[in-house]
Amino acid sequence: MKTKIKILEVGARDGLQNEATSLSVGDRAEFLSKLMATGLKFLEGGSLVSPTAIPQMIDSEKVWDLVSADAVCRGVDLSFLVANRRGFERAEQAHMNSIAVFTATSETFAKKNIGKSVQESLTEFSQIVSDAKKLKIRVRGYVSTVFGCPFEGPQDPHRAVALTEELFRMGCDEVSIGDTIGVAHPKQVDAIFKLLVERFGAKALAGHFHDTRGMALTNVRAALEQGVRTFDSSLGGLGGCPYAPGSSGNLATEEVVWLLEGLGYSTGVDLDALFETAAWVESKIGRGLRGKLYLSKPKRFNYF
Amino acid sequence: MKTKIKILEVGARDGLQNEATSLSVGDRAEFLSKLMATGLKFLEGGSLVSPTAIPQMIDSEKVWDLVSADAVCRGVDLSFLVANRRGFERAEQAHMNSIAVFTATSETFAKKNIGKSVQESLTEFSQIVSDAKKLKIRVRGYVSTVFGCPFEGPQDPHRAVALTEELFRMGCDEVSIGDTIGVAHPKQVDAIFKLLVERFGAKALAGHFHDTRGMALTNVRAALEQGVRTFDSSLGGLGGCPYAPGSSGNLATEEVVWLLEGLGYSTGVDLDALFETAAWVESKIGRGLRGKLYLSKPKRFNYF
Repeated sequence: MKTKIKILEVGARDGLQNEATSLSVGDRAEFLSKLMATGLKFLEGGSLVSPTAIPQMIDSEKVWDLVSADAVCRGVDLSFLVANRRGFERAEQAHMNSIAVFTATSETFAKKNIGKSVQESLTEFSQIVSDAKKLKIRVRGYVSTVFGCPFEGPQDPHRAVALTEELFRMGCDEVSIGDTIGVAHPKQVDAIFKLLVERFGAKALAGHFHDTRGMALTNVRAALEQGVRTFDSSLGGLGGCPYAPGSSGNLATEEVVWLLEGLGYSTGVDLDALFETAAWVESKIGRGLRGKLYLSKPKRFNYF
Repeated sequence: MKTKIKILEVGARDGLQNEATSLSVGDRAEFLSKLMATGLKFLEGGSLVSPTAIPQMIDSEKVWDLVSADAVCRGVDLSFLVANRRGFERAEQAHMNSIAVFTATSETFAKKNIGKSVQESLTEFSQIVSDAKKLKIRVRGYVSTVFGCPFEGPQDPHRAVALTEELFRMGCDEVSIGDTIGVAHPKQVDAIFKLLVERFGAKALAGHFHDTRGMALTNVRAALEQGVRTFDSSLGGLGGCPYAPGSSGNLATEEVVWLLEGLGYSTGVDLDALFETAAWVESKIGRGLRGKLYLSKPKRFNYF
């Protein structure tokens, strides 16, 4: 019996929100449907933020309306990012069943990203998470800039531990540890996940890596060896982070699948279907994706 | 005291021989001088093969003539690839002090690449290595296609063990285990290097990875954990075409340096000087290099 890995596909949110070309509501829904058909069971569907701030995520409720029945039928967890009380009200009105909230180790990043201090964001999210739990809405927490901030530089690992504790304490079901701008080195990943796993166990922790320096997959294996079994990634390495200068796309989903299936884990994802969906999304965003595995398109789990 | 890592820079041979644009003898010599100035102590300088087969490597003796004094002064091992008796005679006439010979696990690959069966190549190289040792010429052996062959597919790991044994037996000082076309998965690397290290020890073994599927750096860490301390790489991932399956570039030297220095090993290589040399070689080959670390150019060993 293979150990299961949970992959959270962030392409339709963390990916598309940083692409220059905005996709229509219909295309975003079609993208999610195609992603669900690959076998992915956990996806980010969009962001409930101001369209002035992130125009690519406008009308995320309409995307949810188009795909929620399919998601429920398939047993897929489709979550939407909520930045404040207004966002949570939108999630509630749309009868969403899974949301994500986020904070950062860096005060400067939090200020620029959500217009609040870290403590202010925690106070607001604490009430939101409490209300969400009463409505049986699943909540994921993100800690951003854990491995480095574009404005402040290096971050104290104990800050990540304290914030993770806060997010669990307020009721988050899972906390994702974010290398928001892709500066993490495997040595840092070894050390930070060792601290986190000792404190919280590995089950409800996720690793969220970007591939700015080509280290993302090596970081996945490092976190895996600390016991982590949940990873965030985006198809073809779509996107980046709009508030993070110099940040490149997320780790590519197909490379996580390839690495982990080859190591004997089960991801439940069909690699050929991922490749087909990547080709489809390329035609929509109007640029080629650059993931090496995608460009070399090997046959499914045939190691040659 | 940090553990030292030996990096063998193959950019001027395995890299340039796969680039569409041929560099002049003067530019190839300048490239090697710049590489030596980064702190690299082991480099491939060229190939002593027919210019009909590999025009990019024409007149490799002239390159050697231009840089050999500098190499000797700096204590650099500058090696040239020899494919047959004729190539060895050229190395001897040019008073080279380091050569490399190569075989493959795949009969089909050997036939297509050197026009001989594996056994024929071993017979010829055995005499060449014996003659080289009498002249105190250092000899490196390569085993190609260990992790997969473009013509035959999967390869038996015990074939790599047997060929490595043959190469050491005939007198090779070091044997490099080649993922010639970049299909190796970390799981294979774990298994094959475990076998090899148990049999031969790690000291005289090297890992040679290409990054066709984005796995190369994860493969380095896997080999490292089996005890391997020598890695082949090319500056900026020179060589091959990212869109042509089976011919992608080598693992990028700067990414090996970044990974290993960050893990606490010493490579002796100046990262900023590597970046400057990569920019120089881009201007010569007429295309941009695509290594992610190079494109993001972080400051030297400052993890943010």
